[in-house]
This record gives sequence, C-alpha cells and structure tokens, in this order.
Amino acid sequence: MASIVLLTVKHTAQTKVKRCLGSHFKGLAGGNAPSVFLLSGNESLSRGLGLRFMSHGTAGRSAAGSTRTGALALGGAAAVTAAVVGFLANANHFQRAEMATKIPLKSKEEGDIAERCKGFMSAPVTDISVLEERKNEMSTRMEMMIMETQAEFCKALEEVDGGTFKVDKWQRKEGGGGISCVMQDGKVFEKAGVNVSVVFGYLTEEAAKQMRSRGKVLKGKDGKLPFCAMGVSSVIHPKNPHIPTVHFNYRYFEIEEEDGSKQWWFGGGTDLTPVYIDKKDAFHFHNTLKKACDKHHPKYYPEFKKWCDKYFYVRHRGETRGIGGIFFDDLDSPNQEEAFNFVKSCARTVVPCYLPIVKKHLNDSFTQDEKDWQQVRRGRYVEFNLVYDRGVKFGLATPGSRIESILMSLPLTARWEYMHKPVKGSREAEMLEVLRNPKEWV
Amino acid sequence: MASIVLLTVKHTAQTKVKRCLGSHFKGLAGGNAPSVFLLSGNESLSRGLGLRFMSHGTAGRSAAGSTRTGALALGGAAAVTAAVVGFLANANHFQRAEMATKIPLKSKEEGDIAERCKGFMSAPVTDISVLEERKNEMSTRMEMMIMETQAEFCKALEEVDGGTFKVDKWQRKEGGGGISCVMQDGKVFEKAGVNVSVVFGYLTEEAAKQMRSRGKVLKGKDGKLPFCAMGVSSVIHPKNPHIPTVHFNYRYFEIEEEDGSKQWWFGGGTDLTPVYIDKKDAFHFHNTLKKACDKHHPKYYPEFKKWCDKYFYVRHRGETRGIGGIFFDDLDSPNQEEAFNFVKSCARTVVPCYLPIVKKHLNDSFTQDEKDWQQVRRGRYVEFNLVYDRGVKFGLATPGSRIESILMSLPLTARWEYMHKPVKGSREAEMLEVLRNPKEWV
Repeated sequence: MASIVLLTVKHTAQTKVKRCLGSHFKGLAGGNAPSVFLLSGNESLSRGLGLRFMSHGTAGRSAAGSTRTGALALGGAAAVTAAVVGFLANANHFQRAEMATKIPLKSKEEGDIAERCKGFMSAPVTDISVLEERKNEMSTRMEMMIMETQAEFCKALEEVDGGTFKVDKWQRKEGGGGISCVMQDGKVFEKAGVNVSVVFGYLTEEAAKQMRSRGKVLKGKDGKLPFCAMGVSSVIHPKNPHIPTVHFNYRYFEIEEEDGSKQWWFGGGTDLTPVYIDKKDAFHFHNTLKKACDKHHPKYYPEFKKWCDKYFYVRHRGETRGIGGIFFDDLDSPNQEEAFNFVKSCARTVVPCYLPIVKKHLNDSFTQDEKDWQQVRRGRYVEFNLVYDRGVKFGLATPGSRIESILMSLPLTARWEYMHKPVKGSREAEMLEVLRNPKEWV
Repeated sequence: MASIVLLTVKHTAQTKVKRCLGSHFKGLAGGNAPSVFLLSGNESLSRGLGLRFMSHGTAGRSAAGSTRTGALALGGAAAVTAAVVGFLANANHFQRAEMATKIPLKSKEEGDIAERCKGFMSAPVTDISVLEERKNEMSTRMEMMIMETQAEFCKALEEVDGGTFKVDKWQRKEGGGGISCVMQDGKVFEKAGVNVSVVFGYLTEEAAKQMRSRGKVLKGKDGKLPFCAMGVSSVIHPKNPHIPTVHFNYRYFEIEEEDGSKQWWFGGGTDLTPVYIDKKDAFHFHNTLKKACDKHHPKYYPEFKKWCDKYFYVRHRGETRGIGGIFFDDLDSPNQEEAFNFVKSCARTVVPCYLPIVKKHLNDSFTQDEKDWQQVRRGRYVEFNLVYDRGVKFGLATPGSRIESILMSLPLTARWEYMHKPVKGSREAEMLEVLRNPKEWV
C-alpha cells in the first residue's frame, strides 16, 4: 500500500486503436506539462533476475538484468511530479506488443460497468460514463479489476474484524486520483489499508531527456508524453502476533508517443510478513500463489518468488522483510490479454492466500513477550519501507504527494530495542533464521 | 547519536609538527587501503547558509553555499568503508590553518591524562600510553574531551533516572572503535544513548578521484590518504511526554596528504525535540546555547540556529523535527585552538541545557492522549532519522557498519496514525504550528 511505484518503460506498441490515454487527457488543463503522476504500491523493479523466458517474437529481449537499465520512478496514490531514474525502450518489442493490443479480448466475467461499480468501496476514479464508453480498453478493464480487488479484500477484512473501513476519495489536481480505505485500531487489525489510484499526466522534460540518453527518442505531442497508471495496493497489520502482516500490489502502466505508439506493462506481487513461523501457513500462502501462477506459466512462481525475496531485503540487517511470496514488474508477455489475465489471477488470490491464515489464528492467545517481538519486527518493517522501498522514497521526495496514502503502510506501533537478540532455540530465533535464509515453501 | 557523520574536507594545514595521524596509523595493517572509517553523529552538512563571517586570511572563503560543493560521507560508531559524496579543498585556507596549528595552546584544565581517564565510562579508544605520548595534539585533546562529555552526560542522566548505562566498547577492524552507552526502559528514560567513536583509516581511490574532480589534487602516501575522525553523539528519549528528546553531536576530522599537509575541521550541534511547547524550556535551552556561542562569536548563535532549523527539516511533513538549537559543520576558524575551545564550550553546555528541563518535568502527570501524541511525534523522529539523516543513510548503506550504534537514535516505541490531525486550538496543534514555523526563542 505504500502508494508509490517505480514503473519501468520498455515496451512499445504501435497501434491505431483508440487509446485510453485519450479519454483521460481530454479533461486535462494544458499548463501542467512537466509533471507525471502515478501509482500505488511499495515495490519497484528488482533487476538482474533473468526473465528471458518471458520473451518471444522475432528478436527476443536479452536477460532482464541487461536490457533494463533504468526505471521511471513514479510517485503516487498522490499528486506527484516525475522522478525518472532511467529508461530503456527496446525496439524489438514493438511487434510483440502490437500483436497484443490487436487482441482486445474481454473475459466473459466483465459484465455491465454500472452494475459492477455498485459493489465498489466508492465510485471509481474515472467517470462511469467514460469507463462505459471505453469498456474494452485495458485501462478501463484494469481500473474495474483493481476496484473489485479493493472491494473484495476490504469486505473480507471487515467481515472478520467487525469494523468498517474509512473511505477517502481524493483527487490529484494534475489528473486522476484515488480511493484510500483504512481501518485503524480494529478488533483484529491494528492498521489495514487498501488503496486504489488511477493517475495520469505528462512526462517531464527531464524524464524525456533521460529517455533520449538511453538510446530511444520518444516524441510527445507538443513535447509532452502522456502517461496513465493505476494500481491497487494494501498492507494489513493485525494485532495478534500470530497473524502475519500481508502486503500486495497490482499495477498497470501506459505511455504514449506523438505518433500514437503506446508502451504498456504490468507489475505486482503479494508477500507475507509473519512474526512467528507457521510452516503450514507458509505453505498455504505460497502454494496458493503458485497455483495461480502455474495456470499461466510454469516459471512464473519460481522466478517471481526469487524476485520477491530479493526485493524485500533489509540489507543493513541481513534479513528479508518477511517470508516473501511473488514479485514481478515489467510484464508485457505473452500478450496484453494474457498478462492481464495473469495479474487478475494474482489479484483474485489475495483473499484465499490470506484470509484462511487470519481466521486460523484469530483466537490464538499470546504473551507480552510475543507482542514485544511483533513490535520489534514492526520496527524492521518500518526500516524497509522508509529506507529501501523505492516507491516510498520517491513519493516522499516528491512535492505534492499524498503523504498519508504513502505512509499508511507503516504500522500503528513499532519498537526498537538496542542489541535485541532472540534466545537461541526460541521461536523468535527460528523466525530470524528463516529471514536470513529464505526457504522454499512449496 | 545516529552514529554517522558527513564530514567535509576543505581546509589544509601545511605543518611540520608531528601529526596525530601518525600514531593511529602505526599499528594499522597495510592491506586495507580502500577503506575509510569514521564517526558518530546524525548530522551532515546543511549547505547554503552563509558562513562567510567565519573566514579570514588573505583570500577569504566565499559563502558556504558556493565554496562547499561536497562532503566526505563517513559511516561510523561503526566499522565502515568510505562513502565520498564530494570534496572541495580550498587552497586559500592553507595559511590560515597553518597559523592555527602553530599555536599548540593547551587549556589549563587539560591535566594528567591517566587521571582524567579514570572518570570515563570506559578506557578510551586510543591507548592511554599513546594519548600521553601525544597529549598536545588536537586528536588527543578532542578524544579526551568527547570521553569527558560522554561521562559527564551519562552520569547526570543516571543520577536523575536511578538506572545504569550499559557500556559497550567495540573495535573497528580497519582502525579505531567506539564506546556505546545505552540505558533502555529506565525510570525516566525510554531510551538514552551516548556514543563515542574514534576511527581512522585510508581514503578510497574513488574518494581521491572525487577530490581531484573538484579541482584539488590530493596526494597520499602510496596513493593512500590517511584520515582520523572522532566524535560524541547522543539521543535521549524520555518516557514522560512533558520531557523533550534531546540530541547532540560534536566531532573532529583530519586528513593527511603525502607531503604531510593536513586538513582539519570541527562540526556539531545540540537540538531539542519537545512533544509539547514550553516556552520557558525553549528559552532556557536556546539561551544557554546562545551564551556559550556568544563567548566565541556574536554570529555563531544566530547562524547556527538557522542552520539547525534547516538541517532538521522533515520535508514530506513540512515541519522541523523539533525546536532546534544549533548546528554547524566545517568549522576551522579563527584558528584550531579557538575552534576547539568553541566546540568544548558547546559540549559543556549539554548538561546545563537539558538537565534542568528534565528535572523540572520529572513528576509532571500526563494522560494517555498525551502519551499517544508523544508516540506520533516519535514516529516523525523515526521518519527524519531514516529518510533524511545523511549519516544514518550512509551508515546503513555501508557494509560492516555497527548498525546497533547507528540505530540507537531510534526511540524504543513509535506510532503512525493515518490522517492524524490535532484539534484546533489544542496544545498538540500549538506544537505543530511551531514546527511548521520555526521561532526565535531568545
């Protein structure tokens, strides 16, 4: 939920189809050129993991670690200006992505827009009339999907907690906005945040320069490069130390050039941060994710599991934030439809991944020592989010960000003890051992 | 106490006097060239504040904002490798600093080394025999002074709390070490840390390159540039929300070139972070600092007060961390003796600045709401230290740092509430108003 995302730009689709971006930009004032907008999520790209298997087409991508030399850093769930870390657009993907956008398949379950909106936590960011007008476009389908994910997850949490989410709908003056749902100090949850953001705007001149310096000239209309980004993200911190913290984020990004060519990709992931190891929980969580992944590609789970362990690493502690899950970015294969279907599968897995674990430990008793250990682990969670999470870092560095949405991923309470060391052989030591040496759970 | 410091390199002293660095390096193994060591403190340089008045000599320094283009980032209270952000050596200061080192005045109060060491929290980092052998050198005088400051402050805190500091003496394999004193969960103090570090080593090749790129070629013996840095730093988080948090750090740095020319400077500051505004406390704290500053230069207090407000600014919140105090870096004027005397005056002001405030509020009653507000402010303290403090950031990014010393500045407990907003007209709102608009207290 850390409400910020680093979105990478790599894939270009030359297409003549009506672009979602057009609809977003219709209502935009012309004077805010050097600003970019963005997304929610507390991940970013973790480079260096080979994702070559995801490539196909006449000229495949080289290993992710080498083709991807940078990222678009996009602050969000907030109004933000662009922070462009780097950029590489690979011309080899034109053909591939084009293929994808020529298959505007719509899954059967995507029914009447207005009807579906009734079940959301709030009206969507984009006007229902615009969504209806463009219901076959990926941006609409993704916005509907993330709104559904938010609603489904919030309702499942409300049911188990008995409390109610506070819903804040906010607008970003440069374009777009978001819906932040927060339940604080509930019966079961210390702090639960589920955030949707749908933002759009223009690439800064600096960002465009960065792109050019990476070997790809991107031309925008009147020097502006329109972007559109959206995502759902969440962090849930329960009170009981036997119920783990969960985090997930699923996001979609588009960028459009002057000639109408479009680049797009998906990113996301779900990961678990327990206070104590419960091997059955760990198996259930990872296995549920694996089954969702396996339906789409046999290598997704093993690769995205590794990527997750690598991304959520608290370097100065020499430990991972939790026991991982999956993490991916920059997904544009095998085609847009299938990539979307995969992301949808992942998003639909959030409730079955997490809720059975919550319910299982709902009435577990715990000691003050166990609560203290939870608080120490919460401190490490804060350390990761404030020190390493690229999304949070760029969000905080970006004037005009919605800070409350960015920092709603922080726990209600945390603790730092000098020289804290669990007793050898204790359950706390067992937890640390797992964080220091990530395991295969499935 | 955040145990890391960014130390700036600017001043060069050509001197033939026996250098402190020599003694430190005598015992160093030869194989660890590309590493630098360092210091404690959670400040760094805050650029842009004009300190022109501090210059003298034939060719004065231009305003600090323009002469100072970089900093040596030195991780410490820990074993660290060098992180060199930048560097500027100004040849105009040769003459000035030379003047200084030719006046090896020793204040009368600096008596017998062995006798003074008896009052310390631990044996000093440098062997007593080495300190005695080089008792007139600035590095020795500074090490003795920071050890005395640590002892004086720890004893004053122990007296008021009734608890005892845990003393950890640690070594840094590359050279030097430190003494970390921590009292946790005491009667009065939630977490109190007072840290000394005295570290030395060599400049990395990258660091040397950085220096050359800034217009000054620094030649080291066999390509190595010996450094020596030391400091005392502390953060005290009391339990009672009516007793403010205090932080201070005083530090000294030396670098030596092949021809024996030496650069040196001092840095430091003391600042207060109350949970509620007490104007009398604020006046007492600032006025005590002002009186110490005024003895040395009428512009020190006003300039260093501004610098402090600027450095301890939590940008994403639009508020300062606390109500400030003083902050300075890069102090090499009017001469080494007087600069040292000023730093000593500041260090001796810590107890009279803070302890009367602690004693005044020792038995103040407080409500749960007041405690909660303290915890929210503690959260902001964590945000500053993890997001902005350059010392912490470099320390965490530096493999081999003593993380526990770096992070002992974090409170025992902290809290993050979504959309926390004090009631209009409340004492919490009054505090926020002051943090958003720093005041003149004297």
